[in-house]
Order: sequence, then structure tokens, then C-alpha cells
Amino acid sequence: MTIFQLRQQWLQGEMIKRGWSGFLVTHHVDIYYYCGSMQTGYLFIPAEGEALYLVRRSLIRAEEEASADVEALGSWKTLAERLRARCAAAGDAPLRIATELDVLPVQLFGKLQAALPGAAWEDGSLLVREQRMIKSPDEVAAIREAARVVDAALEAVIPHIREGMAEFELMALIEHQLRLRGHQGLMRMRAYNSELITGMVATGAAAAVPTYFDGPAGGTGLHPSSPQSSGRALLMRGEPILVDIGCMVDGYLIDQTRTLVIGDLDPELQRAYDVAEQVLRATEAKLQPGMIAEHLYLLALDQVQEAGLSAHFMGYGADQVKFLGHGIGLEIDELPVLAKGFKYPLAPGMVIAIEPKFTFPGRGVVGVEDTYLITDIGWEKLTISREGLIRV
Amino acid sequence: MTIFQLRQQWLQGEMIKRGWSGFLVTHHVDIYYYCGSMQTGYLFIPAEGEALYLVRRSLIRAEEEASADVEALGSWKTLAERLRARCAAAGDAPLRIATELDVLPVQLFGKLQAALPGAAWEDGSLLVREQRMIKSPDEVAAIREAARVVDAALEAVIPHIREGMAEFELMALIEHQLRLRGHQGLMRMRAYNSELITGMVATGAAAAVPTYFDGPAGGTGLHPSSPQSSGRALLMRGEPILVDIGCMVDGYLIDQTRTLVIGDLDPELQRAYDVAEQVLRATEAKLQPGMIAEHLYLLALDQVQEAGLSAHFMGYGADQVKFLGHGIGLEIDELPVLAKGFKYPLAPGMVIAIEPKFTFPGRGVVGVEDTYLITDIGWEKLTISREGLIRV
Repeated sequence: MTIFQLRQQWLQGEMIKRGWSGFLVTHHVDIYYYCGSMQTGYLFIPAEGEALYLVRRSLIRAEEEASADVEALGSWKTLAERLRARCAAAGDAPLRIATELDVLPVQLFGKLQAALPGAAWEDGSLLVREQRMIKSPDEVAAIREAARVVDAALEAVIPHIREGMAEFELMALIEHQLRLRGHQGLMRMRAYNSELITGMVATGAAAAVPTYFDGPAGGTGLHPSSPQSSGRALLMRGEPILVDIGCMVDGYLIDQTRTLVIGDLDPELQRAYDVAEQVLRATEAKLQPGMIAEHLYLLALDQVQEAGLSAHFMGYGADQVKFLGHGIGLEIDELPVLAKGFKYPLAPGMVIAIEPKFTFPGRGVVGVEDTYLITDIGWEKLTISREGLIRV
Repeated sequence: MTIFQLRQQWLQGEMIKRGWSGFLVTHHVDIYYYCGSMQTGYLFIPAEGEALYLVRRSLIRAEEEASADVEALGSWKTLAERLRARCAAAGDAPLRIATELDVLPVQLFGKLQAALPGAAWEDGSLLVREQRMIKSPDEVAAIREAARVVDAALEAVIPHIREGMAEFELMALIEHQLRLRGHQGLMRMRAYNSELITGMVATGAAAAVPTYFDGPAGGTGLHPSSPQSSGRALLMRGEPILVDIGCMVDGYLIDQTRTLVIGDLDPELQRAYDVAEQVLRATEAKLQPGMIAEHLYLLALDQVQEAGLSAHFMGYGADQVKFLGHGIGLEIDELPVLAKGFKYPLAPGMVIAIEPKFTFPGRGVVGVEDTYLITDIGWEKLTISREGLIRV
């Protein structure tokens, strides 16, 4: 049995508990997660029995890759009959079919509803996201490799960093090194309208510009048509250079941040950087199975308040984001989120990027981000880049 | 009046014809198109009066960028009242609100429906896509600049192409050159599950591997988790090297293909390449206002059949795609498509990438792609890269 079939089996157990007839997986990332292939089509996982991968193209590649029965998608008119045939357990009762309503567009959902008259639809997106929260060893291995690639790329470019270099020039160098080492060139996000371009290199005041991006710092970007990531600001002596980057290897992402400086930071920013490291160390001390995700955020808030830095934590003023970290895997915005309202107890197999940062408008952003695996007894840091402020 | 306000005004005229009260623009690319900003939020364009941009973050950047009244999004409970206040013309009648149902996820649509009780919803996505089909001079200028960038990057890497270099290594070089010249690092697609990573470099048999990607050739990619674009195949003498690349400048995309070869192509592939150029020349001869989009595809099919190459055109066998070209702008999959069923008459301001290609399983893909502006009297080629097969 492949890892993909094990995942289908777990989902089937949950479907039986809920009385669902099957799960029609429509999102390419989820299709890959459950069958190991990402060709165009739909993956139907019945509550019992074999999964059926209905493929528009390429059928040949799907047949080579997928842990599922593969058939040509063919006419939508045959869809109802073919899915019904997989749901023997449902008898003649109306089918209850789950799908991912967090990403599925309304138009396509309407087409599916019309193709499966009488079916009741359930939102299965949270269930999928919760299953994907716990990584299997093969997933951890891919993230580990991504961590190796991002570290090697960072070390390769550090000797080339010069005063007067533009943010986007340094980012171009990093991306080149990442791609030479196997980065697939995408950083997938699940949330509507969310995009990520490798991460960002942002320096001084430009890093502290408020951002639409759902993170503590976003960068100016090159133009309002993509208002994030690196822009044209020049790296200057004494300014914090925030290098928040990731890459994708075998489908899996890593996310890490290091603060660099040419020369020295001024004492106030240096102190804030030190507090960021202390927050990370204090978080590590609590990082273990059973700890509730939101508690880590609340503990960090307390610590930051004691340090007198609340106004600067994770963005500034109205543009602060309300989290300390996020799950990561096939997508960068996975569960659990270390934020208020997220009551998930940490569990072995979770992979979480933790990123305490402080924003000083007009001056810059300092902070650090490492990605952790929750283990049976605590944690293991998957990020392998050197710790501490990096002086260039 | 800004170009963005002119676009709102055109949309308002169409809404009045249809009896719609307003358009709630939710997709980040459309929000940018109509107001010049891409911060997180919703843009409401009433059938009459000023547009209202409800922004979650960053409010500051939205205020600087947007051609619209900007307000904090705030509580969803106030949404109904605030949109109603913009629809004075509707009086007390239920609102008819359009939005983009081709991209809006079901979950978020449900939330919007709940926030606006009693409103009737219309699918405005086709209207937006049809409006965006006709480019304004500023849009054409951005595409022209993207064409310059992609050409300069291609010319910069050609001297570095060597036998035995991997596809992904050449792609890494191209991306580096693109990014140094202002490529924003994204190639946006609108269709569900669609992704694009710069385009692709694919050589010989690897280029001819069937693909899920909605194009004549997709490449193997590095792994089934992103089964497109460049892989690990090595560039070999005498094989066609398909370099199908684009970039994004000021939000706008270009798309071009050149076939390269180290040494010479074998006579059969060389002949197919020549036919691709002939198809492009014959298409140019018909490229003028009033020509129906699908006719260009049908004419190409005839020409290809005469050349005895039908089985190889735009993919091979079951994996052929059924089009000759596509509109391009903020996204790569814009209208019009040069394909059966697309009855749009060409009109000045349309920008279309035309890409006749031939696939030979086990041997490679040859072809060419240029991007054209439809003018009052015919066409102008926006692609500036040198014509013809490129011998390295």
C-alpha cells in the first residue's frame, strides 16, 4: 500500500463516521496529496473501495503516477453513473459528496452540482487541511531537503552582497541558486488571491512598508500590480536586511528568515532582534505534543509586552498580523496557525514555521524564522541555516 | 479621470444595460484592473457614482494607489448598509450584484451572500474578461516593455548554452536575467488549478512528453508535484530546444517561443518548423479587425492538413490541444482564444499570442510563438526577438 493509499484510507474512515458517500477532490494540490499525481481531472475517493481518478489530460502520465484507478474524464453526462458505481454502500440513497469549498470556484461547483443531480454536498476542506497538518516521514524528508537547498542558496549568495545592490538583484541571485539546486519555482498558497514569489529580500525602511500580504512584512514589490516582495531599494550599511525565503522540493516548502546587516545595527534594532531570538527560544521551550497552538502566540505576546515592543510586533500599528507562526507543507498557509482561536493541540508530525519579527517604520524589520517538526518528545528544527544575526 | 476610472465607467454603462445595481470585484487581478491597487479587500463599483474600495490591509497603500474611495473593510455586518448607500439608484429594491463566479470560492461566496441578505447575484466574470480583452495604450506599453525584457534575457543566455546542460539550468539562467531586468516573478493564470513557472525550456523527447498544462507542450517538470516546465533532461546536439518563456512587467505578461538547436535539426523536424512559420505568416495575413477568432484556428488546421502534419499539431494524439493562440494581458489565459466556438471578431486593442507548434513523440517539439497587437488596419508584432530557428 502506498502512502497515498494510506491517506485515502484515513479519509475514508472519517467519511464513514460522517456518513459521507465519497470525496470529490478537485484541487490540484489535494489531488497530488491523495494520489501522487497532479494531472488535470478529479479524484473521487468513495467512503469504501478504490479511488477513481478521472483525468482530462494527460491520461498517460496519470496512469504512470497515480495510486488510484485511472479513467479518461470523458463526458460529464457519465459522471453521475460512474461515481454512483463506486458508492455501492450508499445503495439507492442520495449521495453525500464532500469537496473543497474553500478553493472551488462557484462556477465549477455549479457545473458539478448539475452533473450530479440529487447529491447533497458537504464542505470537506477543513478535514483535508486537518489531515494534511500531520506530516508523514516522506513529507518531512522533502521539507528537510528543501531546508538544505535554501540554506545552500543563502550561503552561496552571502559573499556577493554589497552596499548599493538593489533588493531585487539580491533576490535574483538567490532564486538562481535555489533553482540550480532543485527548487521547483513555485511557492503555493491556498488562500484566495494569495501569491508568494520565493519570499522577499527587503531592506531598511522598504521592509517596514505596510503590506497586503498575510505576514509581518511584505516588501514594496516592483509595482502596485504585485505589491509584495523585493523592490528597488538599495542595501545600505547599518540597515537590517530581511531575507525571508523558501523553496519547493518534491512539492514541499520550507520557510526561513535571517536578518543580515552590512556593518552593525543600531542598538534599538539590535535589541529588538535579540528579543525576537528570545521569543523563539521561549517558544521552543513550550513546543511539544499537547501544547495548544494559540497559547504559543499568547505567550509570545506577553513576552513582547514585557520587552516594551508590543507596538512593533509582527508589523506596526493597524498593519500588524495576529499570529506567530503557521503550518507548512505542500502549501505555505497550512494548519495549525499559532494565533488566537486555533485550539489545536500540537501533535507529532506537525511542521510549523515560527517567525517573531519587529517592525520599525522608516527604519526596518528585524527577526528570525525557523521551521520545526513536532516530535514525540518535543521538536526538531528542520531549518539548518546558521543562527543569529548575519554580519556581511 | 484616470484609466482606472474610465474602466469603471465602461463597466457602469454595461451594468445599467443589464439592470445590475453594482459589481463587487473580489479577484485581486480584477481589483487592480479597475482601481490600480491590489491590496486585500473588495472593490464595489455601483452602477452609478463613485467606486468604494473596502480594504483589510494595507489601508495606507490602498489610499496612495487606488482610483476609488477607500475605507477600512471593518465589520462584515456593516457591508450591506455601506453597499446599499452607494446604490441610490436602486431605491428600496433588492440589489442585483455581479461578481466573478469563475474564480470566487464557494465558501467566500457563501459569506458574501450571508452578509448581503436579499441581494440577487449575477455572474459578471465573462463581462470582465471581455472588457479586459481590449487593451488600452498603457497596457500595450507594459506588454511592449515585457517583450523587450524577455528578448534581452534570451539574448543574454544564448552564448551560455552548451551541450549537456540540463533544461532546469538553462531556465535558471533565463529567470535570473529576466529578474535583473524587472520581471516581477509571477506568470498569472486565471483558470482553476492553473500555474505557470516562467514558461519552459524543454529539449528533445522531454518536450514531447504529454502534459496536463493547457498548451501544446508542457515539459516534464522536476517532480510529479509540479509536472510541467523544465526538468533534468540534457540539451543534446541536433535536438530541438523549445524555449517558451514570458515575464511580467508592471503587471503585464508577454509570451514567446523560439526553437533553438545546437547544430542542425533533422530534415523532418526542420520541415515541421518551417510549416509552423508558414502557419504564422498565413495567420498574420488574416489578422485584422473583423476576422472571427475561430476562423484563424480553422484556417491553420487546413494548412496543417495540407502539409500532412495534423497528427502532430499542438500536441500529439489524445494530448492535442484545440487552439492556435490566446489573449494575454494581466493573465496568460485571456480572451479571445483562437479556437472553435470563439466567435469574437478581432478588434483594435486585442493582444494575442499565436503559437503554432508540432510535437514528435520521442523526438521533440518545434514551433514559434509571437504576441500581436490588433490595430485599426491590421496588426503589429509586439515580440521583438529575432525570427527563425536559432542555431547555437
